[in-house]
Amino acid sequence: MGRPARGHFNVVSDDAVFGDGCQIKSFCDIGPGCTFGTGVLLESYVRLGSNCTLSDDVTLKQGVIGTKDMVMEDGVFVGPQTTFLRSDHRGKTKTGTHLGKGAFIGANCVIMPGITIGPGVVVGALSFVNRDLTEPGVYLGRPARKKG
Amino acid sequence: MGRPARGHFNVVSDDAVFGDGCQIKSFCDIGPGCTFGTGVLLESYVRLGSNCTLSDDVTLKQGVIGTKDMVMEDGVFVGPQTTFLRSDHRGKTKTGTHLGKGAFIGANCVIMPGITIGPGVVVGALSFVNRDLTEPGVYLGRPARKKG
Amino acid sequence: MGRPARGHFNVVSDDAVFGDGCQIKSFCDIGPGCTFGTGVLLESYVRLGSNCTLSDDVTLKQGVIGTKDMVMEDGVFVGPQTTFLRSDHRGKTKTGTHLGKGAFIGANCVIMPGITIGPGVVVGALSFVNRDLTEPGVYLGRPARKKG
Repeated sequence: MGRPARGHFNVVSDDAVFGDGCQIKSFCDIGPGCTFGTGVLLESYVRLGSNCTLSDDVTLKQGVIGTKDMVMEDGVFVGPQTTFLRSDHRGKTKTGTHLGKGAFIGANCVIMPGITIGPGVVVGALSFVNRDLTEPGVYLGRPARKKG
Repeated sequence: MGRPARGHFNVVSDDAVFGDGCQIKSFCDIGPGCTFGTGVLLESYVRLGSNCTLSDDVTLKQGVIGTKDMVMEDGVFVGPQTTFLRSDHRGKTKTGTHLGKGAFIGANCVIMPGITIGPGVVVGALSFVNRDLTEPGVYLGRPARKKG
Repeated sequence: MGRPARGHFNVVSDDAVFGDGCQIKSFCDIGPGCTFGTGVLLESYVRLGSNCTLSDDVTLKQGVIGTKDMVMEDGVFVGPQTTFLRSDHRGKTKTGTHLGKGAFIGANCVIMPGITIGPGVVVGALSFVNRDLTEPGVYLGRPARKKG
C-alpha cells in the first residue's frame, strides 16, 4: 500500500487505498471507498464519486469528472474536462461505467451513465458517448460513431 | 435563512443568502450578492458571478461556470462543466440569462449571454445555445436545434 | 515587476514573473517558469503547465487548461473550460502552441498539441482545432473550419 505524492488543497476520503507510485496533483475531490493501483496519476481538478476502482497506470487529466462505481482497467487514459454522467435528463441513474484496458478518451467528452468502453478503444475529443463501444476502433462525434 | 452544509476550500461571499437545506461541496467560488432558495445543491468547482438568484431545489453539477445576474427558477438542473457566457467574441457583454422552472441543461454545454431557456426545456450534452429556447422540447447540437 | 492581486487557494510556482496589474482569481495551478506581461487576468480554475509566456492583457477565463511552453501574444482571450493538449491519442507529445495577437478562442474548445493560431483569429465555442489556423477569420466546428 503506497502513499501518493500530493499537491495542494485536495479533498481525499481517508479510506482511499493507493498502490505504489501514485500522484495526486491539486484541487482533487475523491469520494469514499476508492481504490487505486500502482502508478495512477490524477491531475488537478479531478473529481471521483464513491467506490471507483482505478487499476495500474491509469491517467486522469485535469478536470475529469467521474461518477460513482466506475471501473478503469490498466493503462486507461482520460483527457482533460471529460465528464462521466450518473443520470440522464429524466433523472434516471445508472452505474457500472467500465473502461477496458488501455482505453483512451479524448478531452471535453461526455459519457452517458453505465457505459462500457472496450479495451483499446479510442474516443476523439468533444465526443458524446451514449451506447457501449465494445468493438476496437476510433470513435468520434455527437453521438460517437466509428470512424472510417 | 439557512446555513449550507459545506465541503472544503470554498470561496463564498459573506453576503450570500441561503434557504434551508442547501449544500455546497468543495472548491466553489461564489460572487457577491447571490441568493439561494431551499435545497439548492452546488457540486464541486461551481463558479457563480455576482447577483445570481437560484430558486428552490436547483442543482448545479461539478464545474458549472455561471455568469453574473443569472436567474434559475425552481428545480433547474445544470450538468457538469457547462458554461454560461457573459460576453461574445466582440467583447459585447449581456446579462439576463434566465432558466425557467425545471429546465434541464446537459453536460459540457455553452450558453451565450442573455439567453432565456423556458420551463421544462431540455438541452442535450455538448450543445451550443445561441438563441432563446422558449418552446418546450429537447434541443441538441451546435447550434442547438429542436429534436424530432 | 508586479505583484498580482490574488484570490484564494492558488498554487503558483515561486519563480513566476508578473508584470503590473495582473490578477489571479482562485483555485489556479501555475507551473514553474511562467512569465506574464502587464494586465493579465487569470480567472478561477486556470491551469498552466511549465514555461508559459503570456503577454500583456491576456485573459484566460475559468477552467482553461493550458499545456507547457505555450506562447500567447498581447490581448489573447481564451473562453471558459477550453483545453490545450500536450499529447495525442498515440501519446505523441508536441509543444509550441502559439496564439497570435488578439486571437479569441471560445468556450469549451479543444486545441491539439503544437498548434499555431494567427493574430485576430476567432474560434467559436465547442470547436476542435487540429491544424494551424493562420489565415484571419472565424472558425467553427469539429474539426474547426472557416465560416462563410
